[in-house]
Amino acid sequence: MEKVNLKRLAEELNLSTSTVSRALQDSYQIGDETKSRVLQLARKLNYVPNPHASSLGSRRSKMISVVIPEVTDSYFAQAINGIEAVAQERGYHVLIYLTHERQQQEQAILKEFQGGRVDGVIMSVSAETTSATHLQELLTQRVPLILFDRALEHVQTATVLTDDFASSAQATWHLIKRGCSTIIFLSYFRNLSIGQARLAGYRQALQDSGLPFQPELVVDCTHSDEHNFQLTLDVLQKHAHTDGIICTAEGLTLSVYQACHELRRSIPADIKVICFSNSRSAAILNPPLTTVVQPAFETGQAAANLLFKSLKNKSAVSAADSQVLPSKLVVRQSTGG
Amino acid sequence: MEKVNLKRLAEELNLSTSTVSRALQDSYQIGDETKSRVLQLARKLNYVPNPHASSLGSRRSKMISVVIPEVTDSYFAQAINGIEAVAQERGYHVLIYLTHERQQQEQAILKEFQGGRVDGVIMSVSAETTSATHLQELLTQRVPLILFDRALEHVQTATVLTDDFASSAQATWHLIKRGCSTIIFLSYFRNLSIGQARLAGYRQALQDSGLPFQPELVVDCTHSDEHNFQLTLDVLQKHAHTDGIICTAEGLTLSVYQACHELRRSIPADIKVICFSNSRSAAILNPPLTTVVQPAFETGQAAANLLFKSLKNKSAVSAADSQVLPSKLVVRQSTGG
Repeated sequence: MEKVNLKRLAEELNLSTSTVSRALQDSYQIGDETKSRVLQLARKLNYVPNPHASSLGSRRSKMISVVIPEVTDSYFAQAINGIEAVAQERGYHVLIYLTHERQQQEQAILKEFQGGRVDGVIMSVSAETTSATHLQELLTQRVPLILFDRALEHVQTATVLTDDFASSAQATWHLIKRGCSTIIFLSYFRNLSIGQARLAGYRQALQDSGLPFQPELVVDCTHSDEHNFQLTLDVLQKHAHTDGIICTAEGLTLSVYQACHELRRSIPADIKVICFSNSRSAAILNPPLTTVVQPAFETGQAAANLLFKSLKNKSAVSAADSQVLPSKLVVRQSTGG
Repeated sequence: MEKVNLKRLAEELNLSTSTVSRALQDSYQIGDETKSRVLQLARKLNYVPNPHASSLGSRRSKMISVVIPEVTDSYFAQAINGIEAVAQERGYHVLIYLTHERQQQEQAILKEFQGGRVDGVIMSVSAETTSATHLQELLTQRVPLILFDRALEHVQTATVLTDDFASSAQATWHLIKRGCSTIIFLSYFRNLSIGQARLAGYRQALQDSGLPFQPELVVDCTHSDEHNFQLTLDVLQKHAHTDGIICTAEGLTLSVYQACHELRRSIPADIKVICFSNSRSAAILNPPLTTVVQPAFETGQAAANLLFKSLKNKSAVSAADSQVLPSKLVVRQSTGG
């Protein structure tokens, strides 16, 4: 098959390649009739622009990328849908990159973007990320960057977050009102501000209700199911009076249910469980799970809108545009219904 | 900040830009000592290659893309992990594109790849895809393409599939042995060969066991939870003697559990349920769900290995390299334990 390129189109139309190129880019310098002739032939011959060449020309890749830790978490799957809903309206493609919760992987991916491969980046940092250098470098190269859900402090850009402090305090209060007094807090990303905010909300609710804060009830979980199962077993065995558990990540649900089952502690009779989770399965678990549901789709939408605003105005993203969207407590049987 | 480009590196090292470029590409024409000097300075100055320029030179983007319908399905999330495990070993980045089960979106994405943006594509087609033209076009442009899980017939490339016929027959037999005789089959992608194979397995098991095939028990589900819930309610109400359900997609689980709950039909006492599902939550549902578990991670690995073999040999992917990996039946309480 002969390659269909600008030269071929130009020859068939008896135009210069630069006229064809500008017509395809919808340049104001080219008349409507010519544009129409060029587009018709391009379509007929199934002309595909060389992405490298055309990006160099227009300096726009028409691609944005989303960098997230995992897709096994419903929150991120739903946030992607929110981002894509906005991007598709604007004719942009969305590339998704996974860090698998590793800072090193995150750094390698962001390095890729420095060369201008994408027009902008929407990102949620990995659980193990402690340094912001790779984010700073991207901003120095003027690649617009929006952080959502999991941000890093001291990065001068907009964030779209949930009310982590308030929703964690509300979850803790919910357990306290249901009679819990020894509440385990399964932490997932304590080095990040999201983890700190959720822990602070838990502490505040304990304090306001007159319950003591016991540091040994706070457990740092990891990315391994087996490890989290063992950690949960251990803390439940050490603290036999435990009557409540707060899981700060959806992925911890399985470990908690299995550990309670293993120790024959009934949910909710013996132990009440609440989980930050966007999983649709929450309603059909045994027992149905009380959840803190984050506005995942809306967060993705908001982050994408901020990014496109920056692209349209050709301006840097301002930290002043940051947003906080509220989560919702959905009460089910795991806390007594 | 002064831009660090090949010219700047060349000047500082007193070398030609072409020598620097070839050193960075690890060319055999350049000695080790020179390579080492170039790499050291590039690292020190935080040199970032221009992706467009270097792709045009090396004709390799060092990126592969994965095109899948959804990430809310555990199967695809796990398959991505298998693909990434292989790609990372080879120093490749993985770009993930979602079609949201729409053929039009799938066509637009594949069009993007025709210009050489990625080195190869690993793909699972959308539930609504009926035409293979966009896949054929990609192959004509010599972009290596591997299909996994959901393939299209008559596309000349390698596929990595599961034993859909055998595992569906096994699931049906499992229900029959547990005493079921009126078994609803919730179909999801009947236009694709995967859907046809699963339906054929169901029919074969019915026939072998002497049960009649009743077309009205086969329900074509869609991508909408509400719609699937309504469809399931309807068929259960119309066929009051139903005592078994086979769901051919993980996303149908919620609708089935909720419809049975709504109609006060107990699982498994009244109706036994089995689902093609890779969800880790299956074990903690109420009741725990019997599943056909596909080898998702291994399928992703196998597909990636085939792609890299083709890239290494600079040869087209051969249909003869296709593989079929076995699924596994995991029996739990939803079919009687």
